[in-house]
Amino acid sequence: MARRKKIYEGKAKILYEGPEPGTIVQYFKDDATAFNAEKRDVIDGKGVLNNRLSEFFMTGLNNVGIPTHFIRRLNMREQLVRSCEIIPLEVVVRNVAAGSLAKRLGLEEGSALPRPIVEYYYKDDKLGDPLVTEEHIAAFGWASQQDMDDILSLALRVNDFLSGVMIAVGIRLVDFKIEIGRVFDGDFQRLIVADEISPDSCRLWDAETGQKLDKDVFRRDLGDLADAYTEVARRLGVMPKNAAPITKPTLIN
Amino acid sequence: MARRKKIYEGKAKILYEGPEPGTIVQYFKDDATAFNAEKRDVIDGKGVLNNRLSEFFMTGLNNVGIPTHFIRRLNMREQLVRSCEIIPLEVVVRNVAAGSLAKRLGLEEGSALPRPIVEYYYKDDKLGDPLVTEEHIAAFGWASQQDMDDILSLALRVNDFLSGVMIAVGIRLVDFKIEIGRVFDGDFQRLIVADEISPDSCRLWDAETGQKLDKDVFRRDLGDLADAYTEVARRLGVMPKNAAPITKPTLIN
Ligand SMILES: Nc1ncnc2c1ncn2[C@@H]1O[C@H](COP(=O)(O)OP(=O)(O)O)[C@@H](O)[C@H]1O
Ligand SMILES: Nc1ncnc2c1ncn2[C@@H]1O[C@H](COP(=O)(O)OP(=O)(O)O)[C@@H](O)[C@H]1O
Ligand SMILES: [Mg+2]
Ligand SMILES: [Mg+2]
Repeated sequence: MARRKKIYEGKAKILYEGPEPGTIVQYFKDDATAFNAEKRDVIDGKGVLNNRLSEFFMTGLNNVGIPTHFIRRLNMREQLVRSCEIIPLEVVVRNVAAGSLAKRLGLEEGSALPRPIVEYYYKDDKLGDPLVTEEHIAAFGWASQQDMDDILSLALRVNDFLSGVMIAVGIRLVDFKIEIGRVFDGDFQRLIVADEISPDSCRLWDAETGQKLDKDVFRRDLGDLADAYTEVARRLGVMPKNAAPITKPTLIN
Repeated sequence: MARRKKIYEGKAKILYEGPEPGTIVQYFKDDATAFNAEKRDVIDGKGVLNNRLSEFFMTGLNNVGIPTHFIRRLNMREQLVRSCEIIPLEVVVRNVAAGSLAKRLGLEEGSALPRPIVEYYYKDDKLGDPLVTEEHIAAFGWASQQDMDDILSLALRVNDFLSGVMIAVGIRLVDFKIEIGRVFDGDFQRLIVADEISPDSCRLWDAETGQKLDKDVFRRDLGDLADAYTEVARRLGVMPKNAAPITKPTLIN
């Protein structure tokens, strides 16, 4: 492979300069981190699964007219995406109380929210990604009021689409996180969904049993993370081509 | 004094049923608490000072047309106020980074903010009064979007007035907290400034020296709290009538 310039290495992905201007190659690593990287492990196959799953969700969003950075998958671990200026916010949409919201407001984990709630966390590992309000965002210029209105409606559209996809395969979309980037067409700025959408960035519960099929399996030591992600990929019909078969071939007599 | 029905005893005040329907008597105690009442003390004279100071600020607000609950002071420790339905939010306005905002966003304490920032904290001691966003407030119905718009403009008007009062006596208004209540005129709901405005609920720094003249003196063990509040009262010309003289009478030869 030709030498490529590494742009950034994060907790879950590496970014390389893309083959054309304005593009980036996202390489999905097997690294799993939680609690602001205090907990770490390497989960064999996670990068391959997330590369496929993010392709699947981003393609679906593009197809319903919700713009994303996704251009095409390049190989098992890499996808080509449109380079953008990331807004330094983790945009979280919640349908069910869980995680930090349950704790903050004293809600029981699993209780349905009266309506979807969109939250913003300032993307800064040193500060522990603190919750911020629209006032903070506007005062510090991380996004304009117009941006925030656009982000809110993008986030809710993504929630509609993903909720539909998930419920169709027996999964409850509890919450998810997206990142939003700016792209410029001349003087005109547009916002697109960037980063990744995968079980690393969603809470996914089996609709029947409540079994967790997301990164909480790792955060809370609930079993094998790759198995959980494989189950999501299997239900969605998104399996890496050379994945190990789920059941061993059965010997006939 | 006639027997009165106690309605509520909080950390700093006691509420009694007022003499007329729709009124409440607020009794200002000498109790000081901080860090969600983990730190406590009794500060001789604090209640008297806060009763006077809250009267002073609320009267000023009423006079510039910003509606408050204040009706009249009854005695050294009590004031008559209009009873209202308190919105369960602590509305904080900040002009300068300090306290939890400085910590949350990694700002140096004392750095000027690009513009005043209004924040909402859900008033719940058990949860530690967590920061909440407009999305949380709307989703759980603590206030409507219309309420929030009204609260925001009330809060900014209070900030304008208080900043003016303070700077006139050499004090920098760093931040303050108010509570907002609903009153009903028939079917019509109005929002008014309630609770108290005092050095318990503001950060006040001497404009020249930066000396703290507010509850941080207690929180951070910086000296005598009553002295600090007395200094604020003295500068504003608001002294309890029978307060001890600030300087001892000087003997002339
Ligand atoms: N289309 C894009 N253009 C530019 N940067 C992107 C794009 N999509 C994602 N990113 C950024 O690339 C990084 C992805 O790597 P990741 O391992 O998730 O990093 P981190 O540890 O910072 O979350 C993130 O910082 C993310 O904001
Ligand atoms: N005008 C009013 N009508 C009804 N309740 C009020 C009014 N003003 C303040 N309150 C409430 O009275 C209580 C004041 O007592 P305080 O000691 O400050 O209590 P807390 O410990 O709950 O903060 C607060 O709960 C406040 O919300
Ligand atoms: Mg990331
Ligand atoms: Mg109080």
